Parts: sequence; structure tokens; C-alpha cells
Amino acid sequence: MVLSALEKAEILVEALPYIKEFYGKKVVVKYGGAAMIDEELKARVMQDIVLMRYVGMNPIVVHGGGPEINQLLKRLEIETHFVNGMRYTDQATMEVVEMILGGKVNQQIVSGLNASGGHAVGLSGKDAGLITARPMNPDGHLGFVGEVEKIDPGVIDTLIEQEYIPVIAPLGMDEKGQAYNINADLVAAAVAVAVKADKLVLLTDVPGLLRDVHDEASRISQLKLDDIPRYVDEGVIAGGMIPKIRCCEQAVRGGVGRTHIVDGRVPHSILLEVFTRAGVGTMVVP
Amino acid sequence: MVLSALEKAEILVEALPYIKEFYGKKVVVKYGGAAMIDEELKARVMQDIVLMRYVGMNPIVVHGGGPEINQLLKRLEIETHFVNGMRYTDQATMEVVEMILGGKVNQQIVSGLNASGGHAVGLSGKDAGLITARPMNPDGHLGFVGEVEKIDPGVIDTLIEQEYIPVIAPLGMDEKGQAYNINADLVAAAVAVAVKADKLVLLTDVPGLLRDVHDEASRISQLKLDDIPRYVDEGVIAGGMIPKIRCCEQAVRGGVGRTHIVDGRVPHSILLEVFTRAGVGTMVVP
Amino acid sequence: MVLSALEKAEILVEALPYIKEFYGKKVVVKYGGAAMIDEELKARVMQDIVLMRYVGMNPIVVHGGGPEINQLLKRLEIETHFVNGMRYTDQATMEVVEMILGGKVNQQIVSGLNASGGHAVGLSGKDAGLITARPMNPDGHLGFVGEVEKIDPGVIDTLIEQEYIPVIAPLGMDEKGQAYNINADLVAAAVAVAVKADKLVLLTDVPGLLRDVHDEASRISQLKLDDIPRYVDEGVIAGGMIPKIRCCEQAVRGGVGRTHIVDGRVPHSILLEVFTRAGVGTMVVP
Amino acid sequence: MVLSALEKAEILVEALPYIKEFYGKKVVVKYGGAAMIDEELKARVMQDIVLMRYVGMNPIVVHGGGPEINQLLKRLEIETHFVNGMRYTDQATMEVVEMILGGKVNQQIVSGLNASGGHAVGLSGKDAGLITARPMNPDGHLGFVGEVEKIDPGVIDTLIEQEYIPVIAPLGMDEKGQAYNINADLVAAAVAVAVKADKLVLLTDVPGLLRDVHDEASRISQLKLDDIPRYVDEGVIAGGMIPKIRCCEQAVRGGVGRTHIVDGRVPHSILLEVFTRAGVGTMVVP
Amino acid sequence: MVLSALEKAEILVEALPYIKEFYGKKVVVKYGGAAMIDEELKARVMQDIVLMRYVGMNPIVVHGGGPEINQLLKRLEIETHFVNGMRYTDQATMEVVEMILGGKVNQQIVSGLNASGGHAVGLSGKDAGLITARPMNPDGHLGFVGEVEKIDPGVIDTLIEQEYIPVIAPLGMDEKGQAYNINADLVAAAVAVAVKADKLVLLTDVPGLLRDVHDEASRISQLKLDDIPRYVDEGVIAGGMIPKIRCCEQAVRGGVGRTHIVDGRVPHSILLEVFTRAGVGTMVVP
Amino acid sequence: MVLSALEKAEILVEALPYIKEFYGKKVVVKYGGAAMIDEELKARVMQDIVLMRYVGMNPIVVHGGGPEINQLLKRLEIETHFVNGMRYTDQATMEVVEMILGGKVNQQIVSGLNASGGHAVGLSGKDAGLITARPMNPDGHLGFVGEVEKIDPGVIDTLIEQEYIPVIAPLGMDEKGQAYNINADLVAAAVAVAVKADKLVLLTDVPGLLRDVHDEASRISQLKLDDIPRYVDEGVIAGGMIPKIRCCEQAVRGGVGRTHIVDGRVPHSILLEVFTRAGVGTMVVP
Repeated sequence: MVLSALEKAEILVEALPYIKEFYGKKVVVKYGGAAMIDEELKARVMQDIVLMRYVGMNPIVVHGGGPEINQLLKRLEIETHFVNGMRYTDQATMEVVEMILGGKVNQQIVSGLNASGGHAVGLSGKDAGLITARPMNPDGHLGFVGEVEKIDPGVIDTLIEQEYIPVIAPLGMDEKGQAYNINADLVAAAVAVAVKADKLVLLTDVPGLLRDVHDEASRISQLKLDDIPRYVDEGVIAGGMIPKIRCCEQAVRGGVGRTHIVDGRVPHSILLEVFTRAGVGTMVVP
Repeated sequence: MVLSALEKAEILVEALPYIKEFYGKKVVVKYGGAAMIDEELKARVMQDIVLMRYVGMNPIVVHGGGPEINQLLKRLEIETHFVNGMRYTDQATMEVVEMILGGKVNQQIVSGLNASGGHAVGLSGKDAGLITARPMNPDGHLGFVGEVEKIDPGVIDTLIEQEYIPVIAPLGMDEKGQAYNINADLVAAAVAVAVKADKLVLLTDVPGLLRDVHDEASRISQLKLDDIPRYVDEGVIAGGMIPKIRCCEQAVRGGVGRTHIVDGRVPHSILLEVFTRAGVGTMVVP
Repeated sequence: MVLSALEKAEILVEALPYIKEFYGKKVVVKYGGAAMIDEELKARVMQDIVLMRYVGMNPIVVHGGGPEINQLLKRLEIETHFVNGMRYTDQATMEVVEMILGGKVNQQIVSGLNASGGHAVGLSGKDAGLITARPMNPDGHLGFVGEVEKIDPGVIDTLIEQEYIPVIAPLGMDEKGQAYNINADLVAAAVAVAVKADKLVLLTDVPGLLRDVHDEASRISQLKLDDIPRYVDEGVIAGGMIPKIRCCEQAVRGGVGRTHIVDGRVPHSILLEVFTRAGVGTMVVP
Repeated sequence: MVLSALEKAEILVEALPYIKEFYGKKVVVKYGGAAMIDEELKARVMQDIVLMRYVGMNPIVVHGGGPEINQLLKRLEIETHFVNGMRYTDQATMEVVEMILGGKVNQQIVSGLNASGGHAVGLSGKDAGLITARPMNPDGHLGFVGEVEKIDPGVIDTLIEQEYIPVIAPLGMDEKGQAYNINADLVAAAVAVAVKADKLVLLTDVPGLLRDVHDEASRISQLKLDDIPRYVDEGVIAGGMIPKIRCCEQAVRGGVGRTHIVDGRVPHSILLEVFTRAGVGTMVVP
Repeated sequence: MVLSALEKAEILVEALPYIKEFYGKKVVVKYGGAAMIDEELKARVMQDIVLMRYVGMNPIVVHGGGPEINQLLKRLEIETHFVNGMRYTDQATMEVVEMILGGKVNQQIVSGLNASGGHAVGLSGKDAGLITARPMNPDGHLGFVGEVEKIDPGVIDTLIEQEYIPVIAPLGMDEKGQAYNINADLVAAAVAVAVKADKLVLLTDVPGLLRDVHDEASRISQLKLDDIPRYVDEGVIAGGMIPKIRCCEQAVRGGVGRTHIVDGRVPHSILLEVFTRAGVGTMVVP
Repeated sequence: MVLSALEKAEILVEALPYIKEFYGKKVVVKYGGAAMIDEELKARVMQDIVLMRYVGMNPIVVHGGGPEINQLLKRLEIETHFVNGMRYTDQATMEVVEMILGGKVNQQIVSGLNASGGHAVGLSGKDAGLITARPMNPDGHLGFVGEVEKIDPGVIDTLIEQEYIPVIAPLGMDEKGQAYNINADLVAAAVAVAVKADKLVLLTDVPGLLRDVHDEASRISQLKLDDIPRYVDEGVIAGGMIPKIRCCEQAVRGGVGRTHIVDGRVPHSILLEVFTRAGVGTMVVP
């Protein structure tokens, strides 16, 4: 479709009320899933985040690892086993995780944002004591799979005050300097609480929470905390949605105004979420 | 035309390079002519300016008086006469000018910007010694028609640092406190130089400088200072275009990077000028 | 009387304790009445306010409209009628109010202050959303006579931090951009509360609250809030004093330390109030 | 003479143009002579300096030692001898100088200023490396009589930025930590240059530079640098005036706008100098 | 003992955990006793305090008068008498106190710190209203022996923010400007509370609180507030230790984290206290 | 050797003059070679750098890759070939370089510094456009081996202002987002010039520049730029020393005050260089 310059100007102007609403607000974006693999989707997420910065928001990106960790583990012939559905992370695996998350994925996102006109700075949870971690399973059955013990948001604040976009790899460090691999959704929620974010957006590969998983039209666009137990009981919240919803719940209880589960397979889904009332995905509210 | 949300998002993203280019820049907009009379054009100029602010520019508005001065003079039965095509401004006329410019037009623009989501603050050249004026004709043949003697941009800087949009009525004050009516184009150019603006946009009722005044396709989209004398000789720059071009010339010589004569009758012409390479009107360059 | 330079120096030095006491304090002055008409009184009020600024106070001026609104209404043959003693303000009247308050009176005060060495900046309640108004009479019987719904003191704070003197015309704007004419005393009280002023001074045309309205010696120099109902019952607080006293009461309840009703017909009455213990007029205290 | 409150207000207002002129300016006052001995004069100097601060100037006081050094030397039976009219300062004498200047006189001035409502802080040239000194006579014939080698105005700037009044005892320190006694006029001039003062006022016990020393009416109210040699040749500048004039000359050459030799025996002579055009004493100009 | 450069580096590095612990903390040091008389000890205290500053602490020094007051009283043949073991301080004595404390001792410490590379600034309690005093004995039996009524830490804060080291002579001033001599330990405790210090160190001439005064091995290294009454009853806290312990108690109750009574006769005892866990002297804790 | 606490304190104090000299200065440390492999040396470098920060310097670390790149290339069976002694870097190799430099080595150094009490933040040249790179060999014969085209030190300045320690991986990005591997010495020199560092320290595996490579006693402790060509001609500067010396030369010409080639195999060699006059290695001076 070919639009005249005027029609384009009209559309810019339509965004004004949304721009105004989020001006100066902090938005944590958990970036992962399909939007991290498909080159075109990737490019659009980068544009969306840079645009958010230029129209006055303070986006903070937390990313997962994508399929590349498995690929490198395989190439290096490092065997892994699973405990209750979670991968046991030994030191060799941990090194691969760090190289992929910190050295490859994080820097690719930083490059992508900067190529789109942003000023992004990569961080891991090790930088400036950003994420203090502890083993998720204290018995050591999961190795270096960690959970967030404490967030020190100092370096994030320093960066966003100067209008940089922080991009955070979900790695933590305990007090002895040992690295831990942490679920990126959990990191995003904890960071959102620690920086007092106004919004948390989880990019996923589903259209949101569906009453009937086979019917996109059954999407629950708004979910109250009080209704979560019932939906769990009914099996509506199930499988991979359980941890997503738990992250949102944790963020909402921690004071984050709005949390969203958004379909990253839809191009520009972040912008759509921010700049239209329509809403995409599922919003979890108090 | 109905656009999908996605198509709209694409258009927002297209604006990114322009947003980036002008981020943090000061843009002086001379607002006048048709764009100040037609309600719909008016609304769009307000949106354009507020949008400029939200995407990181620092717009500064200078406005003229429109037809309302004449209307009030007529209602009050104040007779005026003209000297060399300029209206002789006596004290009674001056009062009307001040009431219309400072009390009505300025505040209408401020209201309009604020209703569009901006934070505008009205100023006249009297505020904080912003514009020191002297009579344009020292013999007094024009009464209180003035010209700019000095700009003290302190109050403008104070306001834009806090992200307000200054809206300036083209009134000056001499050292004895006497008010003067100054041509708004001249004020815009002088303010642009004083605040070290990156861009000056004059909204006019013409499509730009035309080689052949009957042929819009003959528009000169870029005009070099060196070519001005020739165009004047040839009669291409003539009539009302002479003072417009002179203002641009003065701004360019004073260090303003880009100056534009833009057709205010085209909706969103400011945005088009800023956000497209196409360019509208005529740009005067060094 | 001719004073030696030494005698003058002594008098400057006498003011030291008062200067010290008010150093850095915010003082809202409601300027109106005779002090706004008589040229000599006017000049002195300007000097007083500028002097306050130079000795370290932060004066904020709120002004009324004086007789000029009526004069212009008459010249324009706009008929007005009264409802319960208040003028019904239709759109035509409102335009005149705006032109006089914002375009003439406000700028005259700004000019006067600047000519006395100050750096004043004119504001109306429309600027930067300073005063959000609503109709005083929700039934619309009074037209666009408004009352203060909310004060956003941001632009005042921005200006006084840079040592400017804000001069405020008592106009408000509702959320649709409609202008309202508000009683200046009410605006002064609301501004004083919003900026957390230390002092509110209402310039009036009476010597203060008199027990016996025919006997200036019966002036009540200090009035406690608790005594107001009794004085109203006794008819001591009556007529035009009722709204003045109500304004003071509102300011005191809002946290303004000291509120004063001062006789603007006495030259330099503001300075006298500030720089002498004697006190002039009536001070309303908690 | 009894003045009405109004007459007093008029006098305050008369000072406005002078207050405006010196607002934010730095004024170095060399305090010494009769004004340091007579209790009443003393009190007035304190008031003058505190008033200067409250009306926006930044006064910096440098003081001499007065007769108290001699008194204590005598009581302690420390013998002194003179070399070319200057007292040889050995270690025992130096200790007395330090105790009197730093422990007694400096703190008396600080107390006096604070009792008048100021916030004064005593300094010696030793504090924070303020004055680096070297022996005036490198052969050691004068002992620890020093001259200024370097001023580090950091601590003065720190204090006046917070609106304190620095009070400086004219003691310096060489790189080994040895204290030196320096002429207070020289310190005042050097400090004035180092802090880029706008004005230097030397309080003396003479009415200024007189053509005829017996005729006060012969006072030279303004002295150009170029005329100094001639006046020295003619014997107009002679005796104690030579070093005073040299200090002023040094300050003027160092960029201090105005330097004044003022009669400290006249009450409030500092205020008179600052707040009247009449001028007292002699002003040395480029 | 000759150490290799490497061995020295190792020792620097050993101090890291202590440096880290106290980084940015305020430490009030009461300087007095032997450490103020012995030249070598003196030099080391200066080094210790300057080093504290360079490794990021904010030391604040309060000093006593040492034996020099008595010497000068004797030389000047000023007779003194004692009331309950405290010297009656008349005006003549007070002057000597001020000259010694403010003019000599204070400036010697400032010189010493600056010669060691610091940027020290001498203060007395008179400067900027730092210490408001009242007579210790309201009946006047002790003359101008004072106690602390109020501390205004403004000037201390101003100085340490710019990385200066404040050095405070224990003199106060009442509201009439009368000077008072105050016990330096009491001043140190009051200053520590007022600036919210993290540590108070009292340099004394004892090894700390000893259970058996003849046995240094009986030192109580940590003393709880609750145990003080018992130790007083048992005579363990007795004589000169009573006021020292009272000062610590007062500081602890005022919120100072750690207070120490340290042996100033041990070289570098301040550094040892700060940079070793061993601890020297007695620490009083809540 | 066992030292008493006192002896240790003495050593701390000995460092004072050096601490003072470098207070507030920026020092770029190129970290590589043996000091990056040997665990004990590593720990000491971490301590040295953290200590530098705590005593007021602003260290900035640039690191190389060590042997780990080769190890991973080998494990992944990526074949590489060499061009003129430099490894051709194709995309697969580049990915390994990025994972090792950015994901492993950089984060190990960050962890090490933080475990020693520092607040380090890892950066690569991609972050915030820190290093713009171009191919070293424009013909592409070296693949993605790059050289520095431009340094944007903004993010470094932001971090050191908040007392963080930046740790920089020597990766650059061209305008299309392509990553380049750059020699770490070159990056260190370019960063030192860009941040206007006072000192550049290159940690190497040699004792400095030796006249006779077999005789450590022939070390040239100071090398003038003018002497470089001669030493190159004589073969004294040869092999791996050539690029090191070139880096120092480039930094010195760029305004870095002091540049040092230091033996990283000596424990605490950085501290020794900074805190002793003895000097270790070779200093290159203008």
C-alpha cells in the first residue's frame, strides 16, 4: 500500500496520546522466542525499542538465550541431563551459557539496537553486582541454575539517566563470584520491580492466555491476580504459561503498574501494545 | 483509507531516522497565515509542534497577529493610515495590537498546544527583557512599529530546559518600557539566531519560491545565499517573498543551519518538512 | 525632607533583621484595587516587589483586572447582566476579559517590574496547565466564571528558581481548553497554597478589618481563624471583606504561614508590611 | 530625626539601582584602621558587610591586625627591632602575630558578622593552601615577613557559593609549612585578583588621596593608573599612601573593575561607597 | 627492616577490605594528649588523617588545647582558680584560650595536614554558627566554661563535600556573641552526632579501659552501654575515664555507629584502629 | 615475613605521596599475557586495579583474549590460516572471538574485580558505539581483523563518573553493524587518547625494552619518541616490541602523559609502577 506523506503524518500524530502517556516511563521488555530467531521480526523489535527511547520512554531489555546454547553444547559434545524438566547446569555447560548469552546474543542485540539508531549497552548480572544469585535448588541437583536473590539497579539507573538502553543477559553471580544461569522471565520481573518500572512486556510465542488453547478468539485480554488460582485449577493456565503468569504476578505484587504477555510472532507487537488501545496479548493487573 | 495497526506501526518506525537526526535540536517555527485561521490546519499545526517536542526536539513558536487586529481596530473605530505600505502604529493602535497578540492569539496557541498534550508557555518580548526593540523608522513616521535591537534568550533557555514549549508574541520593549509591534518573521529569525537554533521554519501561504509564480512545479527547493541577488534582479524574489527571504538570509548568516519557507496551507506541512526527505517549500542555505 | 547619605545608610541597615527573616521565602502578592490605577502607587508597588526579589525573597504576583474590562466591554457595546451580584460571562465577554487581563494588564505589570530593574515573566492560568478551572456555577448560570480546580505550580517553580518574578493573570482552562475568568483573590490563595508560600499579601482599598467601619483606629491587626464566625455573626466581617477573609482562611488552612489584608492606597504598603513590626492592615493567623 | 515608616521605605527603594548593579558581584573589603578599633564604627562595618550579602553581593573580608599585636608583644616582653621601617619578625613574634590575627581578631570579626545576622567563616592563608607565601626579603633580613606567591581561591569559592562570608587573616605558608606575616592590603589585592572580584575596597584612616594633605576638599575622587607616576613625583602620593595606591594599581592591572580607598572613620562608609553615586574616598581606575 | 617493593604492595592490598568498608564514611577524630605534643606522633597523626581522606573517608578533626594554654596564662601572669576541679574561666583567660586554640593549635594542625598533602580548613565553633554554647554552670561559677547547646553542621558539610578536612577548635558562641571554652571530647561527640558520623575516635593517653589499671592485658576491647553503670560502680570506669566514656555513650545514643577510645601514644593508632581487625583501645557499642 | 601492625601502617603512609599524585587521574591498563593466565597473578592484578579505584584513581581496563580463543577454535574444529603473521578472521572465527572475549574473558575480569571489592562493568566496543572499526586490510585479506576508526568515550565517562571500573573487550563495529576483532594494545592506546588519560600501562610478558635481550639489566627505563627510529634501526626495538612501542608512541602523541610497558609476570607490577619511584619496565615519553 502506498501512502502519501500526509497520510503518514496523520498516523504519527495519532500516536501522540500514547507517546504522552508513557513519556519518561520505564518499560522492561523480556525479549525471547520467535522474535529472537526470525531475522525480520528481530529487526522490528530493534526498531520498536529504539523508537520507544526516542519518544521519551526508558526501555530496558532482558533477553533469553534462544536455541544457540543447545547448538554450541552439541558442537562441543557436552552432554546434559534434565532434572524435573530443567537442565542440570555443570561448569562446562555454564561456560557455554555465558559465552552464548554474554558474548553472542547480548552483543547481537546491542548491535541491532545501535544499528537502528539507539545507544545500547550490554550488561550481565555480573556487572557492578547487578544480579546476586543463589542456586535454585539448594541441594545442588540443578547445578548452577540460579534464582535472583537481589538486584542492585545502580548501573541501570546510571545508564538510563544518560539515555542509554541497557540490555541484560540473565546471568547472576553469588558472593564467591560463581556464575548462575537464571530464567530470563524471572530476571525481567525482578528487574522491573527493582527499577520501579511502569510496564513489563514479556515477548512470547503465544497470542496470550487463551481459554481454549485452540481458539485465539478466546484470548483473555485482562487477568486479575485474584482470578489466577481459579484459572490454574481449571487448566486454563497450564504448561509454559504457568511460569509466565507467575512472573507477571510477581511484578504486579512488586509494584509494576502493568504487565503484559505479548505475541512476539506478530511484527511490531511491542509498539502495538504500547501505541494502541486495542491491546494485544494478555495484561495481568492487580 | 483504513490501515491495520501493523501498517501504522510501520509508519512510526519509518520516522525513526528523522527523529534521530533532530533529537535535542532547537527548531523555531514562525506560525502565521492560513494555518492560523483555518480551524483544521490550526489543529494540525498544534499536533505537529507537540509531536516534535515528544520526539525530543525543542520547538519554539513565534506567531503573527492574523486578521484579528484589523477586526478589533474596526470595531473600536480606530482609524489607521499607512506609510510606504506599513501601518502607522499610534498608542491606541498599539494597545489593540497588544491585546490581540498577547491576550488573545498567544493564549489561543498556548491553549491549543496544551490541549494537544503539550506544555506551552506564552511569552511576549516584554517578558524578562526577551526582546529589546527600537523604532523601525527613527523619525517616528511609523510610530511604534519596531525592529529587534537585542534578544535576551535567558527565559527561553530556562523554559526549554524544563521541556516547555515557548510561544512568543512579536512585541518588544525599549528601555523606557514603551511597547513596539515587530514583524513576526523578523522576530523568528532573531530568536533563531539568539538561541542557536538548528532550524527555522516560516509557515507561509505560498508553496515556496517559484520561478514562475503561476507554476507550482517551478518551485526552487533549495536556494543559496549567493543566488539571492540574481533572483531579486530577475524578479523571481519579489513582493512578499522579499522579506521572507531576507529573514532566512539573516538567520543563515547568524548561524542557523537550515531555514525553510513552507506552505502552511498544506496539512501537517511542518511534520512533512521535518520527517521526509522530499522536502516541501524552499530551503535557504549558506 | 533632606537626609544625609549617612542617615540613609542607617535606614538600610535597620531593614537587616527583616531582610534576614524573609530571605529565600516565597511571598504571593495579590495586586489590585487603587494600587493598580493610581500611577504613583503603581510605580511604588513595582519598586516594592523588585526590591523584595533583590533582597532574597521570591515574590509571585497575581493581579486582577481593574476597571479596564468594563471600559472595553462598553466600547465594544457588549451587554452584560448580573446573577446574584456576579457578572454572567459569555464567550464575547470572556474574550474581552482575556484580552485585557492577558494582553494588557499583565504585560503592563511585567513592563513596570522590568522597568524597575526586575526580571518578570507574565503567565496566565493557561500556560503549562498552571490553573485548571471549572465553572463556579455548574448549572452554567454564570457562564465562564470559574473557580480553581487544580494548580500545577511547575512553571512557577521553574521561573523562581532562575530568579524571575512570575506575574499571573487569573484565567483558568478546563480540560477541553475552554477559558474561565476566576476571582484573583481566590487564585492568589490557591497559588500560595500550591507553591507553599510563606506569606500571602492581598492589596485592597481598605485599611484592614475594622470593628467600626467608620473608625480606622478600630482596625483588628490580628485575626484568628476561630474568631471568624463570631465576627461574621456580629457583622464586623461583611460585604466585600467576606471573600477577602475567606481567601486568607483558605490559605492559612492550606499551610501558608502568614496572610495579610493590606491597604494598597498607602504608598509602599507591601514594604511596610514586610519591613516593619508595626504591621499594616489585618493579619489572619491559624 | 524621626522618620515615618513611609520615608524609610522610600529610602530602601532609592537603593534599588545600586543593589541591582552589584547583584551577584564579588567585593573584597580590606578591613583595618580606626574602623577596627572604635566599637561603634566596628558595629557598622559588620552591618554593612552583612547587608551587602543579603542584597546579593558576595563580600570577602581581609583584615589587618590592629594594635593588639604590639600590646601582646609588650606584655610578653618580646623585643622587636625594625629594618627599613618594617618590623623584623622572628619565630616568637610570628607566634604572637598568629595568635592575635588568627585566634583573636579574625574570630572577633566572624562573631561580629554572625551577631549581625551573617554566616561568616574565618580563614587564614594556611587553610586549604589559600595563600602560598615567600619571604619578602630573600636575604632573611625581615624574618618571616612574607609576600604573596600564589593564591588558591578554591576554599573561598566553595564558601561564597554557599553564601558564607569568608574572613581572611593575612597569614601565608610556604611549602615547608612555615608561616609568614603578610601586609593585609597586599593580601586583599591578591585575593581580589584571584577571585576575579568586581570591586576592592580598602578601609583607611584618611579621606582618600588629597592634593593638599591639609585640605579635605582637595580630594582626588578618581585616579587613573597613568597619572600615578606624576602624583608620586609631585609628592601627592607619599608616605602611607604609596603602598595603598600600589595595592589598588596591582588589583586594577589584575582585572578588578573598581578599587577604592575609603575613609573608615566615616560611619557606614562601605555602604556609602556602594550605594551612592557621590562616592567617598578615591577610586583608582585603569 | 627493609622490605621489597613487592612486600610493600602486598601490604597496601591487605588494607583493601578496610578501605572498602569505610569508603565515603564520616569519621570524627578527637585529637589531643601526647599525640599532640610529641613531634613524631604528631606527624603520624597528620599522615593517618590525610591517608583516610585519600582512601575515600571524610575525616573531621576536633582538637583540644594541650599544655600551651597554661604556658601562656603563666607568661601573662593571669591567675586562675579552680571550682570542683574545673578552671574558672574569666574574660582574660578566655582570650588566652581563644588565641591558643584558634590562633595557634588549630592552625598548626591545619599546617601539618596540608604539609602531609591534605586540604584542611580550620574552624572554630564561632564560624557560621557551628557551635551554639551555653554556660556549663548557669550560676556562673565557672565563668565562660560552656557546653554545647546546638550544632549547625552546614559549614562542615559544605567543606567535606568538596573534600576538605575540617579542623575544629572547641569554642562556642552564645546568642550574644560571647565565646565559651568547651571540653573537646564533648564537642567531638556532639559533632559526630550532628554530622551523622559512622565513627568517633578519641585519641587518649591510655591504652583503653582497663579492668586492672596496672595491667594492660586487662583491656576491655568492647564495652556495651548496658555495662557502663556496673563498671562505674566497680570503679573500673573512674577518674578521667568517666568523661571519655560519657562522650562515647552520648555519641552512641545519638546514632554514631562506632566509638573508640584509642591510645594516641601508639604511633599510627588511628590507622591501626581503622585498618586492622585487631582493634586497639576500647570500642563502646550500643 | 611477619610484620607488626605498626610496620604495615608505615607502609600505607609511605604510599601517600603517590596516592596524592594520581588522585582523580585516569589510568588505562591493557591487561593481557601471563598476568591473565596465572591464577595468582590474576588475583593480584584485580586487587591492584580495585585499590587504584579506592585511592581515587579512575582505572579503565582493556583486555586481550589469551589462549582461550585458540582452544575453542580447536574444539570447534574451525580451521584458520595466517596472512603475514596475522590470523585471517572469517565469520565463524569472529563468532568464537566474540564469545570468548565478550562472554568469557570480559566477564571473568569483571567478576574478579567485583570479588575484590570493585564495581566493574564489562563493555565491548559495540556498546553505545564505543569503538567504530574498519578493516585493517581494506582488501579484505585479513577478514574481520579491524582497526580503530573512532572512539566515542561517552559511556566510559558515564561509568567512571559514578566510580565504576569499565572493562573493555577489544571488539569494534562498523557502520553496518559488522563486528571486528582489534588488537587490544591498539584499543588501549586509542581509548587512553580519547578519554584524555594521564597514564597508559601495557602489561606484557617482558621486563621492558632491553638493549640486550638476554640481559635484564640492560633495560631502558625511559625512552624518548625521538630515539625510537634509532632503536628500531639498531634492532633493539624488534619483533613483538615494535607494536607495543608503536602503541605507546601513538598514545604519547595523542596527549597521554605517561605510557609504560610493564612486566605482568611480576606480582603487583601495576601497583609497583604507580606507587614507587623505582619504576618497572620502560616508560615512553615525548
